[in-house]
Amino acid sequence: ANIVLLPGDGIGPEIVTQAQRILEKIATLFGHDFAFSSQMIGGISIDQCGDPLPQATIDACKASDAILLGAVGGPKWDDPSAKTRPEAGLLKIRKELGLFANLRPIRLFDQLVDSSPLKREIIEGTDILFFRELTGGIYFGESGRSGSGPDETAFQSMAYSVREVERIVRMAALAARQRDNRLTSVDKANVLEPSRLWRQTAARVMAEEFPDVQYDVVLVDAMAMHLINRPRDFDVVVTGNLFGDILTDEASMLPGSLGMLPSASLGSDGPGLYEPIHGSAPDIAGQELANPLATILAAAMLLRHSLSLTEEANAIENAVANVLADGLRTKDIARGGKHIGTQEMGAAVLERLV
Amino acid sequence: ANIVLLPGDGIGPEIVTQAQRILEKIATLFGHDFAFSSQMIGGISIDQCGDPLPQATIDACKASDAILLGAVGGPKWDDPSAKTRPEAGLLKIRKELGLFANLRPIRLFDQLVDSSPLKREIIEGTDILFFRELTGGIYFGESGRSGSGPDETAFQSMAYSVREVERIVRMAALAARQRDNRLTSVDKANVLEPSRLWRQTAARVMAEEFPDVQYDVVLVDAMAMHLINRPRDFDVVVTGNLFGDILTDEASMLPGSLGMLPSASLGSDGPGLYEPIHGSAPDIAGQELANPLATILAAAMLLRHSLSLTEEANAIENAVANVLADGLRTKDIARGGKHIGTQEMGAAVLERLV
Ligand SMILES: CC(C)[C@H](C(=O)O)[C@@H](O)C(=O)O
Ligand SMILES: CC(C)[C@H](C(=O)O)[C@@H](O)C(=O)O
Repeated sequence: ANIVLLPGDGIGPEIVTQAQRILEKIATLFGHDFAFSSQMIGGISIDQCGDPLPQATIDACKASDAILLGAVGGPKWDDPSAKTRPEAGLLKIRKELGLFANLRPIRLFDQLVDSSPLKREIIEGTDILFFRELTGGIYFGESGRSGSGPDETAFQSMAYSVREVERIVRMAALAARQRDNRLTSVDKANVLEPSRLWRQTAARVMAEEFPDVQYDVVLVDAMAMHLINRPRDFDVVVTGNLFGDILTDEASMLPGSLGMLPSASLGSDGPGLYEPIHGSAPDIAGQELANPLATILAAAMLLRHSLSLTEEANAIENAVANVLADGLRTKDIARGGKHIGTQEMGAAVLERLV
Repeated sequence: ANIVLLPGDGIGPEIVTQAQRILEKIATLFGHDFAFSSQMIGGISIDQCGDPLPQATIDACKASDAILLGAVGGPKWDDPSAKTRPEAGLLKIRKELGLFANLRPIRLFDQLVDSSPLKREIIEGTDILFFRELTGGIYFGESGRSGSGPDETAFQSMAYSVREVERIVRMAALAARQRDNRLTSVDKANVLEPSRLWRQTAARVMAEEFPDVQYDVVLVDAMAMHLINRPRDFDVVVTGNLFGDILTDEASMLPGSLGMLPSASLGSDGPGLYEPIHGSAPDIAGQELANPLATILAAAMLLRHSLSLTEEANAIENAVANVLADGLRTKDIARGGKHIGTQEMGAAVLERLV
């Protein structure tokens, strides 16, 4: 299998390196042949060629079986008047590869429950899988400005088509069948026309194709509440691009260990893109402080979803669980206690791979 | 002063009744003359005259000094194919009265800290005042549908003008000066054009008119995280209509007592509208289970913001604090312990008013 690595900015390179070591060991252990090629994206790519997503990267990704991304962005490229920004590379790769579904599992690691800002009795047992629509909605809507002075007005349009809603709802409902068979769709249908179309379409798909899956609907503002006071009640959650951006970030705080959470972005065919959900953390880059576990878990998702290597994915996830059970922690999850470095953590997982 | 009461649906009437009793007692105690008139809004208004906001209500509100609202909506009026819905009344009154600023104080009651889903060490000391823009943004943007079958597409446009941003940022910055002198503006400027205009305009207003106020900017997804793991870090927060809807609801979970939180909607002149932030809770209506304290605290905000009666507002807030200190609880905040009814709670506050 051909795997493209996109290390990106900040801590991206060091965490991708650790994940690559894990994948190489998996290849050896299970007798696979993984070929890696590293490509540019984000701020470093702007610095080197003026483009956050050069054509060479797009071509390599399209020709690959799966993509592992570190992180992009940083204050260095945050100037609002800049011609282009690292995030543009991220939005473009999603669109170019048709990655319309962003999957984010929010799962608790038993050993880390006490790191959660929420009380144990609220958070214990939480296990949510989010499906965020990733190539539509207001992110890719028409935008512009008109008028001037105090009347200057800027707009951007939120749009969804029946087709776009159908495919993400289907994907989420199929995933629900593999889990607890419950799906929650989140919208703002009491105010927004695209949400009304979303709600109608989702209801029809569920009634016609998934009558066996328990289905309900929640407004986005109510969902922002529920995630805090009854997160355990949800199984699979599907929502649009903007709502998903906000809600998955909110949900990512629940386990209290952002450094542990992976995500996958998938299309209907072609390679999937896998990454940790945390950012590029330029302030700690190169200091052996980054937690590589989210990226390592993203590599496990890559094996499972893009290469159908379930056993291999399980092996990685078990190794990570064992590392935690053995009390090994990077600084971000050490709660002030003893901690090890980025490379040591990678090596610890590697050792436990069987 | 003329005060319009809009009891609305579900528990609305019973909680507004308690707040009215408090306001009447304040009038007696402090020698004011409050005249009350009750008007229709929401589902009950749809039932009685087919319109969630009849012209008579609009006229009465416009002629008043302040408005106290209970709650609107309920499953009875939730049919998505209905001609009109209770929420339409809410959106219309905001627009008709030019209530462009929704203020939501998120404050902890010491006695209720342990009701929070968050750990005490995270939440203690939290005191945030949100300013949500309420008459612009995607809520009031152009919307429509086109195409058919799988290509049917629905859209709605998010738009902000410089003028709209200026006035809400100014109002929030003035409030910051009365508090801890810190303002945070929340947007999604890395993706949305109206957010970029928002960010530029806010930065200019702050630099030109409020150089003394400490000012920073946070992305909406990051803010959804920060509210959970470091809520104490924020003083005044200003944001657009949709982001404000989601973030203020998220924040309302932090104190663990939704039944205690009031809000105010203000324009540049004319009457303000005051209400609890919780909904109409039709499932518990008429059972003496509703907590009237949020509405009573909304009445205190009404005295402070619309009638400039600071001492009177303080009297109500102190009475509420004393009720809690005396261990009196409605069911929603009793944590399974002893509780009293809606009317008893109203009477308890009344008794402690001095
Ligand atoms: C960087 C930004 C454009 C991006 C988004 O909003 O989609 C990020 O927040 C994410 O969620 O991946
Ligand atoms: C009922 C609904 C239209 C309303 C809104 O979204 O503004 C409500 O959620 C609120 O926050 O007051």
